[in-house]
Amino acid sequence: MQHAASSALVVAGWHRMSYKYSDNSFISEELEKHIRKVHSIVGNACTDKRYIVFGAGSTQLLNAAVHALSPDNSSSPARVVASIPFYPVYELQTDIFRSVNFNFQGDTSLWKNNSDAGTEIIEFVTSPNNPDGQLNKAVLHGSNVKTIHDHAYYWPHFTAIPAPADGDVMIFTLSKLTGHAGSRFGWAIVKDEAIYQRMSTYLALNTMGVSRDSQLRSLKLLKAVLAGGGRDIFEFGHETMKKRWEKLNKVISMSKRFSLQKLAPKYCTYFQKISGVSPAYGWLKCEKEEDKHCSAVLQAAANIIGREGSLFYAEDRYVRLSLIKSQDDFDLLLNKLNELVSGEEGPKNM
Amino acid sequence: MQHAASSALVVAGWHRMSYKYSDNSFISEELEKHIRKVHSIVGNACTDKRYIVFGAGSTQLLNAAVHALSPDNSSSPARVVASIPFYPVYELQTDIFRSVNFNFQGDTSLWKNNSDAGTEIIEFVTSPNNPDGQLNKAVLHGSNVKTIHDHAYYWPHFTAIPAPADGDVMIFTLSKLTGHAGSRFGWAIVKDEAIYQRMSTYLALNTMGVSRDSQLRSLKLLKAVLAGGGRDIFEFGHETMKKRWEKLNKVISMSKRFSLQKLAPKYCTYFQKISGVSPAYGWLKCEKEEDKHCSAVLQAAANIIGREGSLFYAEDRYVRLSLIKSQDDFDLLLNKLNELVSGEEGPKNM
Repeated sequence: MQHAASSALVVAGWHRMSYKYSDNSFISEELEKHIRKVHSIVGNACTDKRYIVFGAGSTQLLNAAVHALSPDNSSSPARVVASIPFYPVYELQTDIFRSVNFNFQGDTSLWKNNSDAGTEIIEFVTSPNNPDGQLNKAVLHGSNVKTIHDHAYYWPHFTAIPAPADGDVMIFTLSKLTGHAGSRFGWAIVKDEAIYQRMSTYLALNTMGVSRDSQLRSLKLLKAVLAGGGRDIFEFGHETMKKRWEKLNKVISMSKRFSLQKLAPKYCTYFQKISGVSPAYGWLKCEKEEDKHCSAVLQAAANIIGREGSLFYAEDRYVRLSLIKSQDDFDLLLNKLNELVSGEEGPKNM
Repeated sequence: MQHAASSALVVAGWHRMSYKYSDNSFISEELEKHIRKVHSIVGNACTDKRYIVFGAGSTQLLNAAVHALSPDNSSSPARVVASIPFYPVYELQTDIFRSVNFNFQGDTSLWKNNSDAGTEIIEFVTSPNNPDGQLNKAVLHGSNVKTIHDHAYYWPHFTAIPAPADGDVMIFTLSKLTGHAGSRFGWAIVKDEAIYQRMSTYLALNTMGVSRDSQLRSLKLLKAVLAGGGRDIFEFGHETMKKRWEKLNKVISMSKRFSLQKLAPKYCTYFQKISGVSPAYGWLKCEKEEDKHCSAVLQAAANIIGREGSLFYAEDRYVRLSLIKSQDDFDLLLNKLNELVSGEEGPKNM
């Protein structure tokens, strides 16, 4: 809201009616340039000599990448895997397409010793990870392993940026850069031309590319981000998330019943210092043996709504608490947790 | 452009950032209401007691419908068919997903005698048809047959509207209503709740619904369409298309080398009269035995670019000429055809 004038958009009724841009593609060249510029200023991804594909959010690009990395006309479908805890859409989306070419095969660790077998494996590597904020790295390696690097949260407000990411297929989204989830705009940075072509064909036949209205809005927002070298949004975002994490930690550190994931501060090449930890989510654990269903515990005791661990294929002893919400909603969450934790030892001390 | 003020859009930088609308859906209720209103005024589709699903253009909804109408966990995939000549995306899109649940099986006529067999059949019925503008009806019937009615062109500017369409699954798109193909906004009207739910789940996992920016723009455009009862756009559109068709027919009627599809005028319930024929495309045929590749003939003889018949699974003796282009481009097409046809008998008469 501090950049109301530069981020507002005005569109004439007849603007950009056509399927194609003047270069006969579905992609705005101007927007592509601005994406490369943002990455170059932030230093979070290599874009030199890489192709860029647009998608309706990172969501559509996840399957576009799985499609492009799977063998076609193979008798054995590619195995798609991810490391627990992982973002549920990887499995749900891979399953719904019921493809002959690939299917979801669960946790990465099951395939550690199989990575040299004949079957292709596609590993989702989420860094920082959703739900726990860890800077995950690929677990599987080998000539039959392909990796999709989901970097949705790899921005200075959510993590230190130790170095530019340079995976073969990397996925980003406006949703976690500026917060505009509703615009459904994401992009993939792709090293190999053939993979880029297969992803583009998939995008063309699935939706004929991304809405030009989304592209126009995204361009306007990236321009606002870049105004003044981009420091405004990242400093504001990082400060906000860091404070929230500190407050959450302070409360939970007083508890014996609950604990939070450990995240180590790292040197951030963007802020040029060791920056405080500032994840998007708290990955809370109920430590008591009997608290097997942590989200139910939180809801019953304090009316706190989190996402249960089993959604992320982890134990229900874990729950994901979102820290990316309005300040009022965050303060409310903190107050509820505070009351819950303060009352913890109450009955025993009476 | 005649409605510049009412069709322009202004968006604040922080407008509609969230994934969900206030009713926790991916769909703007206000836009859904306006879609129902447009259909009710035009009389081209029944929307009472029907569900509406939004997609990124009709494109995304085609496969959402195929997905939803296919049996899940069946040992025999549904056969997807369409009547030649048909819109190429039906086959290309169905193929690219390489689904266990369905696959494309070509021309409808091949399955006429098989429609009572155990396997499910999904028939695409395009009315008016792309490329030839015919008001096609379902060819296959039976308990194992499902129909997807593609009504992209079922608007008064492209066809008479004899009655409201009332198929189980009907697909429409903004692209062929207002011309805003780039906005990637379409909708399906669905009778059965279970099919609606399966389509919605598919949409959620494929792209998390349709860009809220597209939805906002579409709402603004439908409001401009509805201003003044909607007559402006349909009368303007119908007049424009009818004149183009008349001019094209006049030229081609003088030719022995080329012919056009025959389209019968019908009573239009919207205009309340027998309205002139006004299709989106001319489906031109090269009549000479040796002109087996009509698009090559047109290109070589007059530098006219059309889409060759084989793209639509018809003979290359046919070519699709688009009549939905700028007036300048249409006039240029007409001039080129005129010269070509006037010169037809030239050499013989010398």
